[in-house]
Amino acid sequence: MRPFQDSPIARDGKVLILAYDHGLEHGPVDFDPVPETMDPEVVWDIATHDAVSAMAVQKGIAEAYYPSYEDDVNLLAKLNGTSNLWMGEPDSAVNWSVDYAAEVGADAVGFTLYGGSNNEIEMAEEFRDAQEAARDHDLPVVLWSYPRGQGLKNDRKPSTIAYAARQALELGADVAKVKYPGSTEDMEFAVDMAGRTRVVMSGGSKTSDREFLTQVKGAVDAGAVGLAVGRNVWQRENAAAFLDGLEAVIYEEASVEEALDRI
Amino acid sequence: MRPFQDSPIARDGKVLILAYDHGLEHGPVDFDPVPETMDPEVVWDIATHDAVSAMAVQKGIAEAYYPSYEDDVNLLAKLNGTSNLWMGEPDSAVNWSVDYAAEVGADAVGFTLYGGSNNEIEMAEEFRDAQEAARDHDLPVVLWSYPRGQGLKNDRKPSTIAYAARQALELGADVAKVKYPGSTEDMEFAVDMAGRTRVVMSGGSKTSDREFLTQVKGAVDAGAVGLAVGRNVWQRENAAAFLDGLEAVIYEEASVEEALDRI
Amino acid sequence: MRPFQDSPIARDGKVLILAYDHGLEHGPVDFDPVPETMDPEVVWDIATHDAVSAMAVQKGIAEAYYPSYEDDVNLLAKLNGTSNLWMGEPDSAVNWSVDYAAEVGADAVGFTLYGGSNNEIEMAEEFRDAQEAARDHDLPVVLWSYPRGQGLKNDRKPSTIAYAARQALELGADVAKVKYPGSTEDMEFAVDMAGRTRVVMSGGSKTSDREFLTQVKGAVDAGAVGLAVGRNVWQRENAAAFLDGLEAVIYEEASVEEALDRI
Amino acid sequence: MRPFQDSPIARDGKVLILAYDHGLEHGPVDFDPVPETMDPEVVWDIATHDAVSAMAVQKGIAEAYYPSYEDDVNLLAKLNGTSNLWMGEPDSAVNWSVDYAAEVGADAVGFTLYGGSNNEIEMAEEFRDAQEAARDHDLPVVLWSYPRGQGLKNDRKPSTIAYAARQALELGADVAKVKYPGSTEDMEFAVDMAGRTRVVMSGGSKTSDREFLTQVKGAVDAGAVGLAVGRNVWQRENAAAFLDGLEAVIYEEASVEEALDRI
Amino acid sequence: MRPFQDSPIARDGKVLILAYDHGLEHGPVDFDPVPETMDPEVVWDIATHDAVSAMAVQKGIAEAYYPSYEDDVNLLAKLNGTSNLWMGEPDSAVNWSVDYAAEVGADAVGFTLYGGSNNEIEMAEEFRDAQEAARDHDLPVVLWSYPRGQGLKNDRKPSTIAYAARQALELGADVAKVKYPGSTEDMEFAVDMAGRTRVVMSGGSKTSDREFLTQVKGAVDAGAVGLAVGRNVWQRENAAAFLDGLEAVIYEEASVEEALDRI
Repeated sequence: MRPFQDSPIARDGKVLILAYDHGLEHGPVDFDPVPETMDPEVVWDIATHDAVSAMAVQKGIAEAYYPSYEDDVNLLAKLNGTSNLWMGEPDSAVNWSVDYAAEVGADAVGFTLYGGSNNEIEMAEEFRDAQEAARDHDLPVVLWSYPRGQGLKNDRKPSTIAYAARQALELGADVAKVKYPGSTEDMEFAVDMAGRTRVVMSGGSKTSDREFLTQVKGAVDAGAVGLAVGRNVWQRENAAAFLDGLEAVIYEEASVEEALDRI
Repeated sequence: MRPFQDSPIARDGKVLILAYDHGLEHGPVDFDPVPETMDPEVVWDIATHDAVSAMAVQKGIAEAYYPSYEDDVNLLAKLNGTSNLWMGEPDSAVNWSVDYAAEVGADAVGFTLYGGSNNEIEMAEEFRDAQEAARDHDLPVVLWSYPRGQGLKNDRKPSTIAYAARQALELGADVAKVKYPGSTEDMEFAVDMAGRTRVVMSGGSKTSDREFLTQVKGAVDAGAVGLAVGRNVWQRENAAAFLDGLEAVIYEEASVEEALDRI
Repeated sequence: MRPFQDSPIARDGKVLILAYDHGLEHGPVDFDPVPETMDPEVVWDIATHDAVSAMAVQKGIAEAYYPSYEDDVNLLAKLNGTSNLWMGEPDSAVNWSVDYAAEVGADAVGFTLYGGSNNEIEMAEEFRDAQEAARDHDLPVVLWSYPRGQGLKNDRKPSTIAYAARQALELGADVAKVKYPGSTEDMEFAVDMAGRTRVVMSGGSKTSDREFLTQVKGAVDAGAVGLAVGRNVWQRENAAAFLDGLEAVIYEEASVEEALDRI
Repeated sequence: MRPFQDSPIARDGKVLILAYDHGLEHGPVDFDPVPETMDPEVVWDIATHDAVSAMAVQKGIAEAYYPSYEDDVNLLAKLNGTSNLWMGEPDSAVNWSVDYAAEVGADAVGFTLYGGSNNEIEMAEEFRDAQEAARDHDLPVVLWSYPRGQGLKNDRKPSTIAYAARQALELGADVAKVKYPGSTEDMEFAVDMAGRTRVVMSGGSKTSDREFLTQVKGAVDAGAVGLAVGRNVWQRENAAAFLDGLEAVIYEEASVEEALDRI
Repeated sequence: MRPFQDSPIARDGKVLILAYDHGLEHGPVDFDPVPETMDPEVVWDIATHDAVSAMAVQKGIAEAYYPSYEDDVNLLAKLNGTSNLWMGEPDSAVNWSVDYAAEVGADAVGFTLYGGSNNEIEMAEEFRDAQEAARDHDLPVVLWSYPRGQGLKNDRKPSTIAYAARQALELGADVAKVKYPGSTEDMEFAVDMAGRTRVVMSGGSKTSDREFLTQVKGAVDAGAVGLAVGRNVWQRENAAAFLDGLEAVIYEEASVEEALDRI
C-alpha cells in the first residue's frame, strides 16, 4: 500500500475517476443518449476537466488515444473486462498485462471482481497477479468490487456492499469502487469496513442531476474519497458543467444546492 | 498502436487482405468451385497482384510457401483457427506463436475472436498475449471480430457488428475485420464505433461481381479502409481481373460501374 | 522442516495465533458482537498482547497495517481464502504469493486445505508450490487442515480430525491447525498422528469463557502446542483479559480455574 | 519447413516408418499374433532392415533401447499417446518434451491430432508447442492426422481424409500420416490437398500380403512418399521378407506382383 | 534409463521398497493393527533393516524424519498422492517437485498413474514432467502403475496388469510397481511386457505369512526384481523377523519354507 495522499490519481486526497470502458462492457447502446460520445476523443476531452483525477479505459482506447492526452489526463488502466454479448456466470477477461499498462503510461490500474460468482476464485487469483505486479511498478490499485452471480439475489443490500468493500481491503486494493447502498449511513458502514482502503462510489446508470449529486454528497459525507463515474457524466449534454457540480461536492465540501448552482 | 499509414499491410492507407485459411477452417469443400486453388501456389500467385496488400495464412502454409513469395507478397500471420470437423461452441486453437511468426517473416498478425461465445473470455485472454507480443515485434494486429455462439441468433444485426468493431478498438487491434452489415449507413456506424481502429469488410461466401463490388463500395464509402477477402476472389476463374475491379474501388475511388468495366 | 523451538511464531515452543481473516471469509457479520473490531487497528492492538505469538491476516490487511505493528507483532501471512458470497464445493483462492509475503515481512505462512473437497487435489498442488517457496524463504508453514465437502457428513469425527492432522505431516506443514475433536483423548490421537508436525487447536465460533478454556486446556494436555483463535478473543469485550487466561493455560500449564481467575 | 530430400527420415525422398507404440496405444493384445514382438529388441532388430527409414516409438522404448540401435536405426520420437484402458472423447497425453527427445537422439518427431474430437483445440495447441520446438531443433515433424470423435461417423470418407491431410499442411507438419481412403484416386485427392507437406499412408490392422501391398502401391501411385506401418509388418512371421516387398514398391517402383515375388 | 545394477535403490540388482505413505492415502485406519506405526520413527527404524533397499514416503515425512535416518536408509520420494477423504474418479495430487526431492536427498522418485481413469491423460503429463526432471537429477523412476477407474471393472485381470507394466516401459519408468496377478505365469507375462523396465510386486493389504511369501516367491520366480510393501510388513508385530523372511526370498533365492523358518 502506498500513501494515498501521494497517489497520482488523487487530488488533495480526493478522487474523480471518469470511466469509459462501456464500449466493451455494454456496447454501442450506451452511446445512444449522446451519440458523439462513441468517439473516444470526445470523452478524453471531457476528461481534461480539472475535476477528473483519472480516466479509466481498456488497453485499446489507451494505446490509440492516450498519447494525445498524456499531458492533461491521468491514465487508469482497466485491466479486465468483457462484452455483454456473452451471457453466463459473471466473469471478466484480463485484457491487459500490468507490465504493458506501465509501458503505455498508466498511473494506476483497475480490476473487476465479481464476489459470489462461480468465477470468484479464478478472478481473485488473477487479481493477485495483477495487484502484485502493480506493486512492482508502484501503481495504485482500484478494485471494482461488485458482488454478482450465483446465489446473490440483491447486490445492493448494505451488508453485501460492505462485504465488497472489505474484500477490497483484504485482497490488497488501495481503492474500492462500490455501488451506493442507498443512504449515507449504509455507505459509512462500507467505508468503515474498508479500513485504510479508500472507497469511491460507483456512478451507475444515469439519473437526474439532483438525485445523482445527492448520492455523491451522501457518499462523501460517509467518508468516501470520491466517485468513479461514466454515464452520469458523458450521457449528459452538459458534461463539463456537471463536472463543475461534482467538483464542488467532492473537492470543496459544497452542498447539493451549491453544486446545482454551478451546473 | 502504430501509425496506420506506415503499416506494412497498407497501401496508401488502404488494405486488401487476401485470406487463404479456408483449407483449415472449412476443408476441401471450399476448393470445389476452382479445384486448382487447393494448391497454395495458385493462390500465392494471385496474391502477387498489386491490389493485394497482404496474404493471410496459417503457419504451415507460410512456412512451406512464403520463402518463394516473400519478395512479392506481404505476410499476415493468422495465428488461430480450427477445423469444422469439430462442432461445438465457437472456439479457435492458437496454432502459431507471435515470436515464430516474426521469425517466419510476418508483416502483421491476425486473430479471430468469437464475441458472445462461451469461449469469448479465454479467446480474449489469448488475444491479449498475442497482441502484446505483436507490439514487442512492432507488428500490426488485425482482429477477425465475429460475434457468434450461445445467445446470438443473428450475427449480422448492425448493432452487433458495430459492437464487434468496438471490441477491436477496446482490446487493442489496429484493424477490425467485420461482416458487412447490409448498408453503407450501418457500416458507417461500425466504422465510427471503431474509432482510430481501421475497419475492413469481411468478404464471406461468393456472390455475383456486381453484388460484391457494391458491398465493397458501400464499405469504402462508409469509411472502411478496405477488404479482407478469400472465396470472392479465388473462387472466381478470373481472379486477377476481379482484383483489378476491387483495386479500382478500394484504391481509386472508382464507382461500381467503372470497376465492372475493368473486369 | 525447521526446528520448531526456533520458529519465529513460537514462544518457548508454544503458539497462540490470533486469526483475523474473517472479514474475507465471513464478511461483516463477524464484527457484529464487537463492532469496533471491524477496524483492523483494534485487532492489531489486541495482537500486541504478549500471549499472541503471531497474527494471521490476508495480504491487504498486512500491507495496510503491518508497517505500523511490525515491532510488536509477528506476521503470519494467510495465503489463501475466499468470501462466503460464493457457495459451492469448498475451495479457496490463493491471494498472496510467498515471495511477496516475504517482502511484506511475513514470519510464517498459512494455507487452508479442504481435504475431501472436489477441489482437494488442486488445493494440495497449490499448497505444494507455497510450501516449497516457503522453504526457500525459510518460513514456517501452518496448514489449516479442514476436511470439508463432497462425501464428508461430519467433519468433527475424531478419525477425520486425526486424518487432517496426518495430512499436514505428510504434505510438509510445520504446524497443523485442526478442529477440537471433543475430548483430550481424541485430540491426543490427532497429535500422535501428526508426528513431528505440531498441532494447534482451531478456535471456532464463540463459546463461554469456561467452555473455551476447557477445550484449550484439553488440547494442551493432549500435546497440542497451542491455539489459533479469532472470534473467541476479539468477539469478547475483554479480549486482553481473556488473552491473560489463555496465556496461563498455554504457556504456564495453569488449570482452567486458575485461568478464569486471571480474566 | 525443411527440404524433404534432406530429411533424416527419408531415403531418396521416400519414407518407411516402422511404428511400434502399440504397447501403449493398444496394450498386450497386439502382440498375440507374434508373441516375441512384445520384446522391443525383436522389433528394433526388424527396424534395422534397410527399407525402414525410421522407427517410431514412445519415450520409454527409446530411452531403454535406442542406445543399442542408434547406429542402425533412425529414431522418430512419438511425442503423444495414451492407453485404451481409458475410454472417452479421443485425446492423447504428451509424454515427451521435444527438448528431451532431441537429447535422446531423435531424428524426427511425431504427434497425433484427432481432428473433430472435443479435444481438437487443446491437441492443436499442444502440437503448436511441439512443432515450434522441433523447428528450434531442426527436427522434421510428422502428424498422425486422424479425424475421430464427436460428430464424425465415418473417418474413412475420402473428403475427411483429404481434410486431415490439409490440416497437416496448414498446421505446419512436414509429413502427414493418413488412413488409406480406399482408392488411388481418393489418395491423390489427399496428396494434392497436402500441398508441399508429404503424405504417408497409415498401415492399420493386418491384412493379406496382396491386399496390403496393393494399398501401398495405390498410395505410392497417388504420390504418397511412403508408409508408416506397424502391425502389417511385425504381426507377420516373415517380417523381414515382407519388408523386402514393401521396399520394392516404395523405393523401386515395383508392381505388386514383383513385390510379392520378393517375399 | 540408467543401468539398474547401479541404481541406488537396488541391492545386487534386487529391490525391497518399504512403502509408508498410507497416512496420506488411507488415513489413520491403516495404523490400527499396530498402533505405534502411526509414529513414523517406528517405521523408519524398520526400514533400517538390511533387506530394505529404499523407503517410499511423501514429502512431509521425508523432511521431518529423513535427516535422522539418511545414513541408514535410501529415500524414495513418492511425488504424488491424495487422501481417501475425497471420492471421485481416481486422481492424485503432485505434492512434491523433483527439484525439491533432490534437495531433501532423494535417491529415487515414485509416481502413481491410474491408467483407465478419466484423469489418466493429466496424470501421464504430470509424470512426463517428473520423469524428465528426474533424468536431470539422475534419479531412478518408479511407476506405481495401477489401472483404475471408469470402465475398468477388474483391475487384477492378468492382461490389465501386463498392460500396466507395459505403460511403465513406454512412458519411461525404470521400475514398474504392479499388483500380483495371481500366478507366476501371469506375473511372467507382465515382466515380459515390461521389457527392460524392472518389475516389482505391490504388497497390498495384509495376508498370512505363508500366503504373502508364496506370492513374493511367485513374483521373483517370474523375473520380478523384488517387492514394494507396506502393510504386509509394518502391520505385523514381528516386522523385522518378517523382513528376514522376505530377504531370503528376494535376495537369496530361498524357498518359501526356508523363508518361513527365518521368521
